[in-house]
This record gives sequence, C-alpha cells and structure tokens, in this order.
Amino acid sequence: MRLLVVNPNTSTEMTTAIQRAADAAAGPGCVVETVQATAGPRSIEGVFDEATSLMGTLEWVVRRDDVDAYVFACFSAHPVIDAARELSRKPALGIAEAGMTLANLLGHRFSVVTTSPRWKPLLEDAVRKYGYESRCASVRSSGLAVLDLDALPHEDVVDTLVTEARRAVREDGAESIVLGCAGMADLEARLRDALDVPIIESVAAGVTLAASLVRLGLATSKVGVYQPVLPREVDGLPALFRKVYDSPPA
Amino acid sequence: MRLLVVNPNTSTEMTTAIQRAADAAAGPGCVVETVQATAGPRSIEGVFDEATSLMGTLEWVVRRDDVDAYVFACFSAHPVIDAARELSRKPALGIAEAGMTLANLLGHRFSVVTTSPRWKPLLEDAVRKYGYESRCASVRSSGLAVLDLDALPHEDVVDTLVTEARRAVREDGAESIVLGCAGMADLEARLRDALDVPIIESVAAGVTLAASLVRLGLATSKVGVYQPVLPREVDGLPALFRKVYDSPPA
Amino acid sequence: MRLLVVNPNTSTEMTTAIQRAADAAAGPGCVVETVQATAGPRSIEGVFDEATSLMGTLEWVVRRDDVDAYVFACFSAHPVIDAARELSRKPALGIAEAGMTLANLLGHRFSVVTTSPRWKPLLEDAVRKYGYESRCASVRSSGLAVLDLDALPHEDVVDTLVTEARRAVREDGAESIVLGCAGMADLEARLRDALDVPIIESVAAGVTLAASLVRLGLATSKVGVYQPVLPREVDGLPALFRKVYDSPPA
Amino acid sequence: MRLLVVNPNTSTEMTTAIQRAADAAAGPGCVVETVQATAGPRSIEGVFDEATSLMGTLEWVVRRDDVDAYVFACFSAHPVIDAARELSRKPALGIAEAGMTLANLLGHRFSVVTTSPRWKPLLEDAVRKYGYESRCASVRSSGLAVLDLDALPHEDVVDTLVTEARRAVREDGAESIVLGCAGMADLEARLRDALDVPIIESVAAGVTLAASLVRLGLATSKVGVYQPVLPREVDGLPALFRKVYDSPPA
Amino acid sequence: MRLLVVNPNTSTEMTTAIQRAADAAAGPGCVVETVQATAGPRSIEGVFDEATSLMGTLEWVVRRDDVDAYVFACFSAHPVIDAARELSRKPALGIAEAGMTLANLLGHRFSVVTTSPRWKPLLEDAVRKYGYESRCASVRSSGLAVLDLDALPHEDVVDTLVTEARRAVREDGAESIVLGCAGMADLEARLRDALDVPIIESVAAGVTLAASLVRLGLATSKVGVYQPVLPREVDGLPALFRKVYDSPPA
Amino acid sequence: MRLLVVNPNTSTEMTTAIQRAADAAAGPGCVVETVQATAGPRSIEGVFDEATSLMGTLEWVVRRDDVDAYVFACFSAHPVIDAARELSRKPALGIAEAGMTLANLLGHRFSVVTTSPRWKPLLEDAVRKYGYESRCASVRSSGLAVLDLDALPHEDVVDTLVTEARRAVREDGAESIVLGCAGMADLEARLRDALDVPIIESVAAGVTLAASLVRLGLATSKVGVYQPVLPREVDGLPALFRKVYDSPPA
Repeated sequence: MRLLVVNPNTSTEMTTAIQRAADAAAGPGCVVETVQATAGPRSIEGVFDEATSLMGTLEWVVRRDDVDAYVFACFSAHPVIDAARELSRKPALGIAEAGMTLANLLGHRFSVVTTSPRWKPLLEDAVRKYGYESRCASVRSSGLAVLDLDALPHEDVVDTLVTEARRAVREDGAESIVLGCAGMADLEARLRDALDVPIIESVAAGVTLAASLVRLGLATSKVGVYQPVLPREVDGLPALFRKVYDSPPA
Repeated sequence: MRLLVVNPNTSTEMTTAIQRAADAAAGPGCVVETVQATAGPRSIEGVFDEATSLMGTLEWVVRRDDVDAYVFACFSAHPVIDAARELSRKPALGIAEAGMTLANLLGHRFSVVTTSPRWKPLLEDAVRKYGYESRCASVRSSGLAVLDLDALPHEDVVDTLVTEARRAVREDGAESIVLGCAGMADLEARLRDALDVPIIESVAAGVTLAASLVRLGLATSKVGVYQPVLPREVDGLPALFRKVYDSPPA
Repeated sequence: MRLLVVNPNTSTEMTTAIQRAADAAAGPGCVVETVQATAGPRSIEGVFDEATSLMGTLEWVVRRDDVDAYVFACFSAHPVIDAARELSRKPALGIAEAGMTLANLLGHRFSVVTTSPRWKPLLEDAVRKYGYESRCASVRSSGLAVLDLDALPHEDVVDTLVTEARRAVREDGAESIVLGCAGMADLEARLRDALDVPIIESVAAGVTLAASLVRLGLATSKVGVYQPVLPREVDGLPALFRKVYDSPPA
Repeated sequence: MRLLVVNPNTSTEMTTAIQRAADAAAGPGCVVETVQATAGPRSIEGVFDEATSLMGTLEWVVRRDDVDAYVFACFSAHPVIDAARELSRKPALGIAEAGMTLANLLGHRFSVVTTSPRWKPLLEDAVRKYGYESRCASVRSSGLAVLDLDALPHEDVVDTLVTEARRAVREDGAESIVLGCAGMADLEARLRDALDVPIIESVAAGVTLAASLVRLGLATSKVGVYQPVLPREVDGLPALFRKVYDSPPA
Repeated sequence: MRLLVVNPNTSTEMTTAIQRAADAAAGPGCVVETVQATAGPRSIEGVFDEATSLMGTLEWVVRRDDVDAYVFACFSAHPVIDAARELSRKPALGIAEAGMTLANLLGHRFSVVTTSPRWKPLLEDAVRKYGYESRCASVRSSGLAVLDLDALPHEDVVDTLVTEARRAVREDGAESIVLGCAGMADLEARLRDALDVPIIESVAAGVTLAASLVRLGLATSKVGVYQPVLPREVDGLPALFRKVYDSPPA
Repeated sequence: MRLLVVNPNTSTEMTTAIQRAADAAAGPGCVVETVQATAGPRSIEGVFDEATSLMGTLEWVVRRDDVDAYVFACFSAHPVIDAARELSRKPALGIAEAGMTLANLLGHRFSVVTTSPRWKPLLEDAVRKYGYESRCASVRSSGLAVLDLDALPHEDVVDTLVTEARRAVREDGAESIVLGCAGMADLEARLRDALDVPIIESVAAGVTLAASLVRLGLATSKVGVYQPVLPREVDGLPALFRKVYDSPPA
C-alpha cells in the first residue's frame, strides 16, 4: 500500500518532520511519501492561507493517482480535503479530522491544543463540521505561530504546550489531547512523558486511518456531495486542471 | 457608495443577469459593478469547482480596494468569502448567507430551493455554518443543473421550481423560500406571482445587506478569525498574491 | 417610505433618544416616526413588564396601518413582535433580532452587552429563539438598570459597558458587540471610539433592516405561524381590539 | 392545598370541562378552582390571541394570592406563565410544559397532537423552550379549530385525533401522545381506549405537577429570570397593576 | 398505592436514610418500601459499579410485581432504569431524571451538585440523555465520595455543598439546585436554610413523580424501546432471570 | 498484537461468524481471538438483554489481561464498553462506535441499517452518545430479528437489507451504510455487490480501529470518567469481581 501525505505548508523543514512522523506510524507493507504544496505560504496561519495554498496542494491529487490514499497535513478543515474527495474515490483525510476521530475513542471528551489564537474559532468550526461538538471539551491556543514550533527552543515550546494541555484537563474536563498542528509531530514523545492523558499526534492518526480504510477496501462515497466532477468549459485554468474538466475521473 | 459583485461562475450570461438583479436592488446613491472570476468553470456545481474558481474570484478583492463592499454571487459557503474577510476590512458577503439572513426575518422557518442534488448536503452544511439550522425547514433540490436555468425554457424552469417550493411549504413547514442559485435572479418575479409565500432572491439580498452595513459604518471584525494576513515568505504564487504577503493590508 | 418605531418603554427621554438614532439610520427617502407604549412601566426590566406593556405597544399596529413597517425598540423577544406579525403583513422587527442579524455578518461570533443580570437568561433565550446560539459568544450583563443609562453620568456608563465588552472579546471570543438595550442608542459613538471591534447599535439595525425589507418588497409570511387572525367572539376587550376580531386584516 | 386553574380562553364550556378534568386529577386534600380570563377571545388560536388574553389571565395572579399554585390551561408557552412566575413565588405551570414533562417519563419520545396547523410551529418552539427537542418525536396538527372540539360530534373529533396519533406512532416514532389542547380534556378516556400508547391529558398533568411541587415545598426561584418585579412609575395601567408596581411582592 | 424504592448501593445506612426521605415525600395513601441491591459495592462511584450492581438491583423488579411503581435511588442514568422499563409496564424512574424534571419547573436553569469529579462527565451525559442540556446550567462536583456523606461531620459536608451550590448560582447562572446523590437526602433541610434558591432532593422527587404517574393511570409505553422482552434461549443465568426469558411479562 | 473480541450474544454460530470477519480484518502481526458471554440470551434484542449479558461479557475483561485490546461485538452502546474502559487501560471498543467512526470519514452522512424496530430508537441514542447526530442521516430497521440473520435464507436477508439501504440513500441522503448488527458480518460482500455506496461492516471496523490504537500506543484515558475502580466493600458478588474491588487495576 502506498499513501501520499501532502503538506499544504511550503516549509521543507515541516515536510521533513511530517515524513518522519508518517514513517513511524506506517505499519508493515505501507509506504508513505510526503510532498508539499507547489505554491503557497511557508505556513498556513488562517483562511486566506488556506485559499492561496489550495491549488498547489490539490495539484498532487490530480498528478498522483498511483497512490492508494491521500492525507493532508494541515490541522484544519482545509478546503483541499473536500475537493480531493470529489476528484477521487480514494480515501482522502485531513489530519484534524483524523486526530479528533481517534481521540473520540479514548475518553469522554478531548481538547485540541493548537498554535495561534486565530485557530481557536477556526478549529471550533472544524469540530462542528466533523460532528464532534458534544465530544470536544475545548480548543486551546498556545499563542505560538506555526513556524515558532521549529524556530523556538524545543523546551520552551514543550513547556507552553504542556501548560495549555494541563489547563484543558483541569479546567475544561479534557480526558485526552489532540496536537493541533502538523508542526507538532516531533514533540509527541516529550508531551507524552509530561502529561498523564493520551496524546494524539495527528499526522500519525491520519496515516493510520487512511491505511485502515485502504486495508478494509473502503473508498469515498460517490453518491452525494462527492459525486464525480462534471465535464465543463472553463476559463483561465492551468492545463492540469483543464484536463480534469475535459475528462473527469469517474 | 460603490459595491463590487463578483460572480465565481465564468458564465457571462449569468454575470449579466446578476448585474440586472443587483442594479434593481441598489438603492439611490449605490453603484454596483459586477465582474466574474478570471479563472474557473462556467458554473460552480460543487466543492471542486469552488476550489478551482477560488483564486480567480479572490483576485478581485486584491485588485479592487476602490469599492466599499464585496458580494460573492455563488449560493454557497464558497471559501472566497472567508478569505476576503481576512484580506479586507470591508464588508464581504456571500449571497447564501444574505438570502437566509433576510428570510429569517419573515416567518418561522424558510426553505432553500436549489439546483442539483449535490447542493442539498452542501447547503445543509452552509445552513449550519451560518447558524440557521433551527430556522431552516429544508434544502430542496430541483434536479436542474446551474446552466439549465438559462438553457431550458423559462416556463419549464419556473414550473420545476414552483413545484419544489410548494412541497417545501406543504411538507416541510417552510413559510418563505430562498432562491438557492445566483442564476435564478431573473426568475424572481414569476415565482412571486406563482407562490403565496415570500420569495427571497439572494443577489438582491446580498446587495441590500452589503449596502446596509456600509451605510451604518459597520466593517468586518479584525480581532479573531479575520485578523489581518501575516507577512510571510511564499512559494510559487502569482505576483498579485505575493505582494499581499509582502505587505498585507492592516 | 415611512417606518413606525414603537418604544414599549414609557420613558419620553428614551423615546426621544430612539428617535435620534432612528433618524440617523434612516437613508434617503425613509421617514421614521417614533412613538411609545400608551400604557406600561417607564422601563422594561423583565417578563412581567413585557406583559404589562404589551397591549399599549400592540395598539400602535392596530391604529397605524399608514406606515410600511414596524420596529419595536425593546431589546428582547418581546411578545409584541409575534403578535404584530400575525396582525399585519408589513415587516415587523424587534431590535434584538435586528442587532444580532447584522452582527452575524461581521465575524465569527458576537456578544450582547446588556443592562441588569435578569436580562442575561432572558436574552440567552432570545438568542435561541432567533437561531443564533452557535453564533453568540455570550450575553453579558453590565449590572446597570435600564433607567441608569440616562440617570448616571455618561462617562461611568460608558466605562462600565466598555469593561464588559472587553471581557466578552478577551474571555468569550466575541468578535463584535451588540448593544443590548434601546437606551444605549446615544452611546454608540463613544463605544466605537473605545473599542476595536464592530459595535452594533440595535435601533439603527432595526430601522435599516426594516427599510431593506420594504425596499425589496418583502413582507411577513402569511402561511404558517403568522396567518391572519381568525374572527371570533370576545369578552371584555377595548373597542380597538374588538374590531380586529370582528373583521381581521387579511 | 388549593390550586387555581386559569383558563386563558373565555369559553365557559371549556372552563367547565377543564374544571372536571382538574377535579378528577386532584388527589385527597387538594381543592381546585377553575376561572377564566376576564378579557380575550373565546379561544386562543395563535400569538395575537395570547397577547389579547394576557392581562385578563394575569389579573388572576394579582387578585388571588390565597391559593398555593397556579395552572394556566392553554396548551402553549403562553406569556402569562413567565409573567406569573415573576409576580409570585408560588408554583405556576402551563399545561403544555406539564404534559411534556410527564410524557418524558414514559418512553423514548413523545408526540403532541394538537388542533389547527398554526399550532405546529408554535408548539415546536414551545418544545424547544422547555428543552424537550431531543425527546419530542413530532407535533402533529389535527386540522381542527379549538372550538371544533366541542362543536363537532365527539366521534368525529375522536376519530381525527386517533388517526393523527397513530401516524405519530407509526411514522414519527412516538411512544406516547400528549393531548395538545385544554379542550381535549373530556376526550382522554376514549383516546386511551382507542390507542395502545400512554395518553397524557395536560390539564391533569398540570394539576398533578403543581400539587407535587406544593407538597414538596418547592417554589419558583427568585434569583434569576423570575426575581421580583421592581417598583416603577407607570403610565396608563389599571389600578390593579399599578398597585403591583407601587409595592411589588417580595 | 405501594411504591418500591430500590437502592443500587449496598450500604444499609444509605438505604435507611433513603427510606426516611421517601416516607416524608409519600403523600396520604402511598406506602413506600425501600430495599437495596442484593449484590454490588457499598456505593456506586462510576460505570463499573453500575455494571456490578445491575443484576442485584434489577432482581427486585423480577421479584416484586406486587407494587405499583419502581424508583431507583442512584443519581445517574443507571442501566437498571431502562431494563426495568422493558421488563415491566409499571412506572420506573431514576432519581436523577426525577430531580431534573422537577427542577425544570422552577426556573430558567438548574445545576446539579454531586459527589466525586468522576460524576461530572457521567451526569453531563445523563442530562443529555434526559433531554435537559439546554436547561442545565452546570454539573458541579463537591469532591466528596458517596460514603463521605455519612462518614464526615455533617457540618463539613453541608459547608462543602453550600459552597459549590453558591458557585453554581453565581458563576453558572443556576436558579435551582438538584442534590446529585441519594446519600444527600438527609441534608436537604440544612441546605434549604443555607441557600436562597430551590433545593430539589431527588429521592423525594422520584417518589412524588412515581406516585403522580400511578395516580394518573400512566404506565411505561410498550410500543418502542420498552416493548416486552422476547422469549429466548439463554445460557448461564440464575433461575429468576431464566424464567423471565421462558415467559416474559406482556 | 493480540485482540480479544467478546460477543455479548451467546449464539455460537454468531461467534464463529464474528471470528471469520475479525480474522479477515486483522492485518499482519495481529492475532484475534473471539469468545462469547458466559451468561445471557442467545441474541441481544434490547436493553434488558444488555443487562442480563453484561456480567458474562465483562467477565472476559477481568479474566484476560493478556491481550492488547477488547472489541465488543454487539452493535449498540452496550454498558459493557464503559465498564471495560473503567476496568482497564487497554483500548476497548464497541462495534457500533467503530462502524460509525469509519463511516464518518467516507461521505457527508451515513445511515445505519439494523434488525428489529426496537433498535431504531436505541441506536439513535447511541448515535447521540458517540456524538454523530449531525453526521447520521438515519437509523433504519429492516424488521428482522438478530437470529433471523442466520435462520432465514441468505438471499431474503440480503434483499431486505438492500431495500432498506437504498431507501436510506434515496430518501434520507445517506452516502454510506453501516451494517448495524454483528450478525451481518457474513453479508458484507453481497451487500457491497448490490449497492454503489460504501458498506461498513462493524466487526471489521472494530478490529481495525482497536489494532490502530494499539499500534499508535494509545490507551483509554484514566483521568475522568474512566479513572480506576476504587477499592470498596461489596456484597454478594462472584469471587472474580470481588477481587477487582479488593485490588483494582491502577
């Protein structure tokens, strides 16, 4: 089995760290390859960045139909996820959805600990979109920017996240913690040592769930929202996408 | 006051019809200009189309800061709306949100009558996003494609929509009907004649609400989700968007 | 176009301030007249006051069918609103609904800042009634009585409201603030100066939305909750209301 | 113990039937007296009627503080209920709330079978107000007017209600039926014979629950919504209500 | 009328206290008998304890069909309640459901004050199960274990509960307090003295509501969830339960 | 890795079929063993059966701590799941939760197709418990009893299920189908052939998710609902459970 992890952030350091986390999670017989958006900002820090990174991320789904599933390594309801599901039958998962899905199996309620304050309302909407509003104790911002996760001393980053996770447990009733950024993949081990609740690293969750769906022969449904793209005339799109509209995948 | 209506569909016929509806709704002292996405499919028929039309629609917000507000003429929670709100302080509205907002003032519950079946689940999600789940009686698909609205005989289109609207009233408890496609703007008068419930045409709703916000001096909040874009390094974006990341609007 | 604003509070000072706010919001070609309940307490401070002010407020809808729409200047789900909608086809809006409606277009979530603690649960119910529970960050009481707004030094009132609004932004995630009392109409400018989030003054919101509905030719739906009053025998009602039951408006 | 049942409808026939149902439900040591609104329409058929019957119903709470609790015999969220709770510490219940409360103890979900179609949306709102939206399978209208219940042959009325109740069980998953009108009190026995699910007659439910609260020494809370009326200047109210504002009950 | 109160806790002290509370609540003509689980832990402190006490509690419903209704004196959604409703037509109530049901009639929102922190999430689920999520201000843990209620000095227990109840009123907006443990039955009088909001003692609530249902001739619905047990082959069950499967009650 | 699947039904035929489905789903390096409740009815057909099968199912968790995770093969919110999570840190999953979890990743909304009508309300409650109410299109009963799945000709069973699944897709908007009974494990292949939407077989889902959690080193949270059992005195329990209370697992 072959999975493609696409990082919507154009930071090569982050892409490398994601590859490490993905490799660690891939079971026997599962090969994971990680690529990054061909265009977009270094880090996804909000909805404008989701927009500008969208085509450079979606491009990979058009180009690479030699894989069995897609995982999108941005912790959000990034619009690429839905677009990929419409474009392809193959399982396509975002890591936010994946992280919450596994957390939901481990206790009464989970919290998400994320980076900057802007993500708090955005991820509360994502929680609602994926249906977990009765199961999510809180979304907590650590106040860090995405790129801080690599730029600041690891000890400081870990301390900040541990503090916020403890508040989620003590004040909000969280029983597990979802790490709310692809850039936190390297920190999982240290956070597990520091906290006595389950820590869900979302890249690993995404790879594991995508592989599970492939193994069970499960694919994206093609009868409703994600029914195939209709052939249409288009204006001004790159050749790669024009071809999709000329002869869309069934 | 000057409003820019941006049609994410690249159909010139639809853009012309939208301009007519917008002009009719613009009150005294309000000038409306309608443009269409610089790239994308003729019609937006799902989430993949939202993705491919996104940059060619968002481009207008970057280019045109000489207007007072933006209205996006696709009846959906198109991702351009949130991106525009992050990019600019000026009011930015989608016509789905606008149509539901006015319908909410006219009776106990409204229904949306839209085009193809794929929109039913998508618009149910939009209803949830805008907060109207307790106020929306149903989303009903007419089975028409977006481009059918112009291509088929008007009488047939009207008959189909009237039938669906009557079902919404009788079976679902709707007390008003929101026309769920920018391409229905020309049909409003005939539908009002045929039905005894309020009919909300969404382009007119969008223009009216955007003008209301401008008149009251109300702008998009810049403290949470829509706080300004952060300056960042980027890869592979067109110059227009690179410049946004170099010096984002405050 | 002619709008009637009815103040359910029998305070002439408040009625005068409401007239000022309404005049400022009325666009060209829109004449607004403000009247007050013919019977009831000086200020509406709870559900008992809503009851005692009801007939003296509703009376204006019976008397004045020479106007195009009605706005009720009490920040609550005052029962007069629903009764007016049953009595007349003309748009009839409460200012609480109007303020929340516009706030919903400006950011992720809004908060309401109101007067006495009793309004907190009452307005939480109103939020639910109008469907905004997923969009309202909080209802916050300033601890002031309605009549304090005029009686206390303006600086003190403004300070108190600013403090509460800042808490809503910082602690509850509000991105805009709805002023939760008709008596706050005069304070809007000062609050806008003091706060960096959108401030929605609800009398202005009510006048603007009512005018928008009139301009678009939209009326209250007559097929469900608000279908016309049935003729009936009555006991003990004043002649004005007896006549409604003798020959109700269609 | 002495309970006062107040019928907001000014139909003497209905008041007599309510008294019969209330007497049958009153246990040993519980005396029930039934009165009707001093002003208002023969039957309450919507929100306008709630408004016009409000003061003539509320009057009884002002006049009669020699009783232990109040029951309001209109199957709705009639505004008199909240006003009475603010005016008095004594338990005050509407029969809609009472009927749903008991139904909630008898099975997974209940349905309400009511009179005219207008009540369907109104009672759906009442269900939401009382918190039972996850427990109510449906509100079904029988198409009858309130006064039809007495005017039409009993067999026809029973047949109509039985048909609607059976649909609620078969199509909506109802496991019990709440009779959604005070005017149905006389029909309970026949409906129980005809249906194999629990039938909750709401006047009986109201009397029983009010008596239960009295017996347990439980009173309306005075710390939040229902804190005592504040003394205030008033305009134009009858002496009875003016006196309340001069010296409100503690 | 004869009611059976079954205490799922095997503490004889608690059973005696429950009997006292039940006797005090039983009206004229109502005899209450209290028994305790034939097997299980001294106190129910979580879901494992609910499991181990289940058969020893349910046994009483099999054995004693000479009573008119069953009340289960554990403040939770103990699985015995649903099982008893399937087994018998007679009203069967848990005291958590009963306490919340009466609290719902006394103010805008209630809080539950319970024992150990584990009950907070469990009772939040119970609130949701019974449909009261919009009516429950909070579930608050006092940090006490169930058996502490008897073992610690009463003054200390009362102080702890009063502190938590005051927080519920001041911080969460509670207007009444439900005592969230059968073991608090003896403390009701002192808590009423110390607090100015209604205090609902849940054993009394359960006895009163069960008696009310019996008096009104209302029984558990047998058409849906609680339709009669099907005869089946079984393995390894005690004779008492084997007999149920051989010839289940209709 | 070693997983224990426990079938709460005491039907050996069903246990054998479950073993087959579990073996097919187990990836390389994963050994699955299936056992059945030591006491209880042949088939679980409601809440009474859940109660009587509970101790004989839970017993396996006490006895077998040599495995890495537990899967409970009854499609419901069987109380054994929560009890097992309190007893052990090892992942413990019910197949209903597992099936819904995977379905949630494949389309907008899923439906559950189950056996007898009693399961419809029970599984609607389970959907709510697991948080999927906004993601579940419907729960549909096929009208079959659990044991019918084996007793009736396979063609008939498949036809019945296919009919119901098609209705879920066409009428309710389901985009995938969860097979709502452990006894349907053998039918998955035929249903996949007959339907063009994803079919989720829940035993396979349970085994796959349990193995995923084990592989990622994720365990049940021990800080909230599922904190360890407290040592306590007990009455009348079998030695196996008495020992748990003497020295509970940490």
